[in-house]
Amino acid sequence: MQSRDIDVAIIGAGTAGLQAYQAAKKEGSSAVLIESGSYGTTCARVGCMPSKLLIAAAEAAHGVAEADVFGIKVPHWSVDGAAVMARLQHYRDRFVSGVVESTKEIPDSERLRGQARFTGRTMLQVDDHTQVNAKAVVIAAGSTPRIPAPFDQLEQLLYTNENIFDLETLPESLAVIGTGIIALELGQAFHRLGVKVSLFNPYDSVGSFSDPAVQQAAQQIFCERLDVHLKVDFQSVEASQESVKIAWQTSAGESKTAEFAKVLVAAGRIPNLAGLDLEKTGLKLDDKGSPSWNRRTTQCEDAPIFMAGDVSGYQPLLHEAADGGRIAGTNAATYPEIRTQPRRTPLAIAFTSPQMAVVGQSYQDLDLEQIKIGQISYQDQGRAKVINQNQGMARLYAQADSGLLVGAELFTPQAEHLAHLLAWAVQQELSVQEILELPFYHPTLEEGLRSALAELAEQLYDDKAGCRSLLKTIGS
Amino acid sequence: MQSRDIDVAIIGAGTAGLQAYQAAKKEGSSAVLIESGSYGTTCARVGCMPSKLLIAAAEAAHGVAEADVFGIKVPHWSVDGAAVMARLQHYRDRFVSGVVESTKEIPDSERLRGQARFTGRTMLQVDDHTQVNAKAVVIAAGSTPRIPAPFDQLEQLLYTNENIFDLETLPESLAVIGTGIIALELGQAFHRLGVKVSLFNPYDSVGSFSDPAVQQAAQQIFCERLDVHLKVDFQSVEASQESVKIAWQTSAGESKTAEFAKVLVAAGRIPNLAGLDLEKTGLKLDDKGSPSWNRRTTQCEDAPIFMAGDVSGYQPLLHEAADGGRIAGTNAATYPEIRTQPRRTPLAIAFTSPQMAVVGQSYQDLDLEQIKIGQISYQDQGRAKVINQNQGMARLYAQADSGLLVGAELFTPQAEHLAHLLAWAVQQELSVQEILELPFYHPTLEEGLRSALAELAEQLYDDKAGCRSLLKTIGS
Repeated sequence: MQSRDIDVAIIGAGTAGLQAYQAAKKEGSSAVLIESGSYGTTCARVGCMPSKLLIAAAEAAHGVAEADVFGIKVPHWSVDGAAVMARLQHYRDRFVSGVVESTKEIPDSERLRGQARFTGRTMLQVDDHTQVNAKAVVIAAGSTPRIPAPFDQLEQLLYTNENIFDLETLPESLAVIGTGIIALELGQAFHRLGVKVSLFNPYDSVGSFSDPAVQQAAQQIFCERLDVHLKVDFQSVEASQESVKIAWQTSAGESKTAEFAKVLVAAGRIPNLAGLDLEKTGLKLDDKGSPSWNRRTTQCEDAPIFMAGDVSGYQPLLHEAADGGRIAGTNAATYPEIRTQPRRTPLAIAFTSPQMAVVGQSYQDLDLEQIKIGQISYQDQGRAKVINQNQGMARLYAQADSGLLVGAELFTPQAEHLAHLLAWAVQQELSVQEILELPFYHPTLEEGLRSALAELAEQLYDDKAGCRSLLKTIGS
Repeated sequence: MQSRDIDVAIIGAGTAGLQAYQAAKKEGSSAVLIESGSYGTTCARVGCMPSKLLIAAAEAAHGVAEADVFGIKVPHWSVDGAAVMARLQHYRDRFVSGVVESTKEIPDSERLRGQARFTGRTMLQVDDHTQVNAKAVVIAAGSTPRIPAPFDQLEQLLYTNENIFDLETLPESLAVIGTGIIALELGQAFHRLGVKVSLFNPYDSVGSFSDPAVQQAAQQIFCERLDVHLKVDFQSVEASQESVKIAWQTSAGESKTAEFAKVLVAAGRIPNLAGLDLEKTGLKLDDKGSPSWNRRTTQCEDAPIFMAGDVSGYQPLLHEAADGGRIAGTNAATYPEIRTQPRRTPLAIAFTSPQMAVVGQSYQDLDLEQIKIGQISYQDQGRAKVINQNQGMARLYAQADSGLLVGAELFTPQAEHLAHLLAWAVQQELSVQEILELPFYHPTLEEGLRSALAELAEQLYDDKAGCRSLLKTIGS
């Protein structure tokens, strides 16, 4: 048994942990990075990168399937599932190895392998080999897919994002459990690649839209394009050698069954707090085992304990994990001096088709009495029609008194770009009028946002004629 | 011969003219809109919209051609030229009819058809039928393609953007005269649709990049993908019934000839000032026949004469034409009271592949001694690799003392979106540091901009470590 005295101990060598390590070192602290699993971030190994690679193949397939719309004739085409997965794995492995290499550049003495658990406020036991006495601890332990009943009983043919990208080829059919962001991204991608996909959710919701109008638009489009089952009551799940049979009751009380080659569970993620023996820290834990936590300091209570990344439950996104890790590493190093850091305007994007994005305050965050809403349907939007992607809608929220844009929910083609524009405007605290003074090029999808902003301006300002007449003339 | 007394006479019912009309009416003035050609804007009839429709088909074809990269197998495919043009014309006609209908909603008494020419400072003769005595005149007469020698001698098989979109099917081969924005957009689109395309330019330049590094990158990629001939000296052009033979000398002095089914001239445009008898206004005209003009008032000298849109030679873009028309119409109505209006941050986008965009101050506008430059190659950019569009580069310009972003030249995948972000940041007068505090989602093409901004931050600020270490970890 070794014993180590260190300024900052970091549990988890993912995105948040690596940033925390860099930040602590930059403050001149000694630091040790403890990892129980493989090196490489969730994003690169099993998250954003492999999913975007799958989606890139799916979009290529979709482009071929709809090429006829544009006058391009494709009499026959097929999906080479092994080639799809090979390209995915090739690039994924390159992205992962980039992260692993930079992790391994950290001196051996500052890296520990093994499962960490608290034995005191800032004292950790790593497996059976090392005891770490730290001045401060950063918990950046990530999260794990939640496997709801009855799928937790399934012993084979069960997949999550952790292993689905290792398939050697595409399955013939796939049940996707969940209709959230990951479920829709992957479910739609597999569907476009020719897999027979069905999605199931006990609840009546798709994606992460809290705005009822956008939620309805999303349900309509996804239920039209995909085999989506909402408000299901799972009865049983049985695996044979080659397939899984799912039995469920519909919301109308009808009993149904279907068989699938594989099951992908994408029903949310659980912070990796179990096994850390957090109760040894003296922190007060809620019924989920989480301590109280401040997102702007990343500190737990007023202890020398910090949380960053997915384990914190705050915005499980790479750029937020990186920010959180940096804040945590800095504050852990300078503790008891703690700096409060601003967080960026919330920005969450799902790479479905149409894409989904939530910017700033979502609908559920709003005090509706203080808010004006502008909306635009992309069904008749100029550029969207040109590229045959005229579907979806956007809703933008502005403060009624100040006219400041505070948030938006977007279900539009290429929302990833529109969402950046709006997030930057929200963080800059721009008013609707100020945004309308910025350039919108023609013909672009960005002009759709201008239509929604013009609708807001009509509600916010007296000068009703200006914006609308422009929009009419240029036919956007 | 009729005679009409009117507050504001507007020459040209395109984007600028229509906006000027609306603005003048809004000020309570009487106005008349004079049009010598067809109703419908340049943008909708022969500009942005039909070109983007052609490009949409070309991108569909390109997607099919490269689908194999993603594991999608397409053994045979073909381009149905008639179907491509039919879709283009269908949507173009719908966009045009939208504009025409809104033009026809203007009362008959406020619309005149015919060629206007000045007979005095604010007195116009329209064809032989009407004399208009105006208090102020807005010139919004648009522009016409320039046909350089020897192509001005060609009597058949000669096309410009004015008639190329009326083709019933795709030509077998096409000589494109010019390598500017329109030439590259259309030349590349026809090439991707299977037309044998060659582009020719007497000068050594492609697109509109003034930054030598970006210009070089663009030349390299376009010359690799397309049959581009720069620095040519045209010797002769001869048309037979079915083809055009072009003879030219290369920059090395070699004589060459080639035959093409059609010739598309895209070598710039000339303001429609000839025929207006502008000398009757008493304005001082330069050697091109243009009066001096203020882009923030749109006024010519201090006369009750205003110019807006392409005829002014300033940023021949729809959103600028709309702004210019609005300013001109307002100032014409309130003359002699003239308001100076801010213009938006310059934003010009070409829908090639990679796309080209120039934002704010271009390289040639810069005082290089006061400027720091940050750049990013998209060859190794994460998301660009995922979608197999990892080509091109971006260069961002910031003031050395203040750190304010002032402009950029972009030759990147989907630059249209990145350019909006940067243009908004430039107009907001954001510093590099402030922009780096805004959210960049992962994995997006926007992260490439962050890399360039981080390179700028290293030159501008002391804290060199922060940004780079983040970028390294997340592998963007």
